[in-house]
Amino acid sequence: MRAPGARQLRWAATTSATTEPTQGGQEGSKGTPTPPKAVKFTAESYPELKRDARFAEVTSDDVKFFQELLGSESAVIESISKDASDDIEPFNTDWMRKYRGHCKLVLKPETTEQVSKILKYCNDKSLAVVPQGGNTGLVGGSVPVFDEIVVNLQRMNKIRSFDQVSGILVAEAGVILEVADNFLAENNHIFPLDLGAKGSCQIGGNVAANAGGLRLLRYGSLHGNVLGIEAVLPDGTIVDDLCKLRKNNTGYDLKQLFIGGEGTIGIITGISILCPQRSSAINVAYFGLESFEAAQAAFKEAKGQLSEILSAFELMDGRTQKILSYVKDKKLPLEGEHPFYCLVETSGSNAEHDNEKLQNFLEHVMGEGIVTDGVVAQDQTQINELWSCRETVPESLGHWGGVYKYDLSIPIAELYQLVEDTRERLTKAGLVGETDEYPVVDVVGYGHMGDSNLHLNVPTRRYDKEVEKHLEPFVYEWVQKRNGSISAEHGLGIAKKAFIGYSRSDTMIRLMKQIKDLYDPKGIMNPYKYI
Amino acid sequence: MRAPGARQLRWAATTSATTEPTQGGQEGSKGTPTPPKAVKFTAESYPELKRDARFAEVTSDDVKFFQELLGSESAVIESISKDASDDIEPFNTDWMRKYRGHCKLVLKPETTEQVSKILKYCNDKSLAVVPQGGNTGLVGGSVPVFDEIVVNLQRMNKIRSFDQVSGILVAEAGVILEVADNFLAENNHIFPLDLGAKGSCQIGGNVAANAGGLRLLRYGSLHGNVLGIEAVLPDGTIVDDLCKLRKNNTGYDLKQLFIGGEGTIGIITGISILCPQRSSAINVAYFGLESFEAAQAAFKEAKGQLSEILSAFELMDGRTQKILSYVKDKKLPLEGEHPFYCLVETSGSNAEHDNEKLQNFLEHVMGEGIVTDGVVAQDQTQINELWSCRETVPESLGHWGGVYKYDLSIPIAELYQLVEDTRERLTKAGLVGETDEYPVVDVVGYGHMGDSNLHLNVPTRRYDKEVEKHLEPFVYEWVQKRNGSISAEHGLGIAKKAFIGYSRSDTMIRLMKQIKDLYDPKGIMNPYKYI
Repeated sequence: MRAPGARQLRWAATTSATTEPTQGGQEGSKGTPTPPKAVKFTAESYPELKRDARFAEVTSDDVKFFQELLGSESAVIESISKDASDDIEPFNTDWMRKYRGHCKLVLKPETTEQVSKILKYCNDKSLAVVPQGGNTGLVGGSVPVFDEIVVNLQRMNKIRSFDQVSGILVAEAGVILEVADNFLAENNHIFPLDLGAKGSCQIGGNVAANAGGLRLLRYGSLHGNVLGIEAVLPDGTIVDDLCKLRKNNTGYDLKQLFIGGEGTIGIITGISILCPQRSSAINVAYFGLESFEAAQAAFKEAKGQLSEILSAFELMDGRTQKILSYVKDKKLPLEGEHPFYCLVETSGSNAEHDNEKLQNFLEHVMGEGIVTDGVVAQDQTQINELWSCRETVPESLGHWGGVYKYDLSIPIAELYQLVEDTRERLTKAGLVGETDEYPVVDVVGYGHMGDSNLHLNVPTRRYDKEVEKHLEPFVYEWVQKRNGSISAEHGLGIAKKAFIGYSRSDTMIRLMKQIKDLYDPKGIMNPYKYI
Repeated sequence: MRAPGARQLRWAATTSATTEPTQGGQEGSKGTPTPPKAVKFTAESYPELKRDARFAEVTSDDVKFFQELLGSESAVIESISKDASDDIEPFNTDWMRKYRGHCKLVLKPETTEQVSKILKYCNDKSLAVVPQGGNTGLVGGSVPVFDEIVVNLQRMNKIRSFDQVSGILVAEAGVILEVADNFLAENNHIFPLDLGAKGSCQIGGNVAANAGGLRLLRYGSLHGNVLGIEAVLPDGTIVDDLCKLRKNNTGYDLKQLFIGGEGTIGIITGISILCPQRSSAINVAYFGLESFEAAQAAFKEAKGQLSEILSAFELMDGRTQKILSYVKDKKLPLEGEHPFYCLVETSGSNAEHDNEKLQNFLEHVMGEGIVTDGVVAQDQTQINELWSCRETVPESLGHWGGVYKYDLSIPIAELYQLVEDTRERLTKAGLVGETDEYPVVDVVGYGHMGDSNLHLNVPTRRYDKEVEKHLEPFVYEWVQKRNGSISAEHGLGIAKKAFIGYSRSDTMIRLMKQIKDLYDPKGIMNPYKYI
């Protein structure tokens, strides 16, 4: 597979894409990157959204109050008394450059007490608030829509404690995920969550978004690993549930409402989390398969034979690998073309044992014809090389300008069928093609197969109403019919708010609104989003 | 250690214990078991509890309604129109014979719709309700206090579905834990929860109580493993959240409130749970240690060296083993006496690898002098034999009549100190001794060390106000000072309701009451208990 652009598709470098490029798109190594254009305001992309008149507008008196409260000059950024829009823009815009708000005030508290006083003040004055961590979300949840005040947690970045025997870490919400993981690595432990944005996302935001990522297959979800939370409710109440115990059956587990609550009922200021021992032996294999059925069989064998050392099972279809190879001008690890690829990672305490298990597994799946070809990394460089075939997929897909992205959970047997059906639908409508007259480049799928989590991606030359009409509600209806989830790990934010009904019943939505009203009766927390 | 009754304590068979024997006590193989006496009514043991006058009393019209609703004769047991108290008693009394209610009506619905109609009727008529699973709880949570209606889930016992690839089981609340685990064993999977009562407890009850048990160290808590819940709210609303997906980030995770909610906001009728692949290789080792510090060091080594195959790390002090040996007339696996014993279990997919890891671990901890002596089971019989040294402890301790039991979570460094401090306190007060004049036989500790979960037990010849005065609030205050939990895995029920303040702040309790009021404004669900 050394000839990019061959056969099925011609990977023309984009020239006329009129859409905003994704972050990935800008970083692609092929073609001329589109110069960044001003990001469209969310309120323009979603004209049905109107500013809620119940909310007050920020005044210079408010600014004065916060300046006195937070003390430091750098803790308050505002464009009310002066024009400071350049400073404010990074807090108004998401990294995908898809969402942009009109915020005029950013606050950076340093303590939980400050957060409490901020929220109490805002609640009393009906000032709307958007909690913001690393601002790496994918659904527009961490930037304002109108003039909500941004409460950014970056200055709450202390690791409070770590217990070597139990593996329990207590840290403030603004600690960068990678910083936490590096700290744990020094202590021979691992953060039970890993994701592409680890260098900038914050652990409080991860918990608020209930991030899934690459280690969920092995270590489970944050609902199991987070042992305690410190959070602030809109009325200033400090939820002091920063439990450092693995077991504590004393009453309702309220902290769970904040995990995946996307900052709509309060602001997480600290977490306590159970961190596993770090594995000394890591192995990664990458293989090609003939069909999705074969990928399923391989997953079943991996579960059985790799069992306790299996730490990732990722799926990439052949198209994602071909695009990646073309865009990045990268030689793929396997010769020839395969309709599907899987990446398997093992993590264990004994390299020899793990190698033997992995070899047995590979011999079995190749002997049985489940896997067509495979390669095992021999050192850390090769491990990184194989992982890059999975991790640079999103970025490569952005090469032509934009990507329609769906993060879905579907019962595993039908996981990939959606990609086929969507491709067929868009192709029949005449929307997919090799040249610039077609908006859609291709329809591809990849994701966390071990968790039944598919990322359906539609790389496109321009955002196009006709494409959207063919994608939605089609994709959501398809998922609904299989009792799947329309947002497996990315959350609702503003992007999926309107579609929750495809994954939740009216009863569930009603019960959720009840919780929102209970904790945030004035609705000041992260408005216009979520449910 | 072949001479029971020697040295430190004389294990006199009880003759004068005036307390109700525990279930264990009756089954002890030494001494004359006290004949079961009538169980004292909870309302007498807790004279401060008064029947809530807001609740209606069950009438024969109500009985008629339920008979028509449930159809079958056997689905309604009542002592209103006729005297049927013998049939009712098992539903009124807990297995420890500590708690007893005055219930006159037991309902056994077979479908979620029936549960919905029952609760709606009860809510409309202000009839109080106690949800009941296998009635194996330890805190009196599953029996009525006064005349609450018992809704028993035993007829909702269907396994609805199981997916071989994902390992996701969907089953009704009334399925017995062991039945579920046996079903999964046939399908090469394992229920991620195991506990002594597995032969009679029900999975719905397990979830409502957030049971911990023996597999939590390896597979994590139910908050992580339960993927979905079907439940009925007091007003009859069916919470249809029976998600069969590992990931679903679409709104607040409301099901978490039912996990550990102890039936106070609704009745769980079904669960969806992620079940791991069953391990083909199981190893168990049992060893003696000189000190609790050595036990901690052994645990740290086990985490490091056994890592991904470690599936249990249990602690028993020397006194529990000595008592067990005496009461059960059982030869202990190790010669000599050791102040502490640990049981280590590994579960993995490759017996040879696991054996090697375990041998390396044992050689290391014995070479370093961390462990004094140890033995590894060679077959299933020996595995059972070693496990019985842990599992029959609670039963053996009941031999003298009663046991004061505390289920605590304490940061691991101080886990055992509480046992020492309590023993010293009771000894100084002249309450501990070898002869019948002393109420207390001994003060011992054992538990799930891997989870920092201590069972502090005080085997006693009779329940005694003086002993109680020296135990409480001492134990709770001790735990509070260490930010521990006064109920690690048993829950609150009626037993711990008054003590929640030692583990939760006033703010947390207030927020919990808010949730209770939201879902159960009339307070009909499992009243007089929990928070």
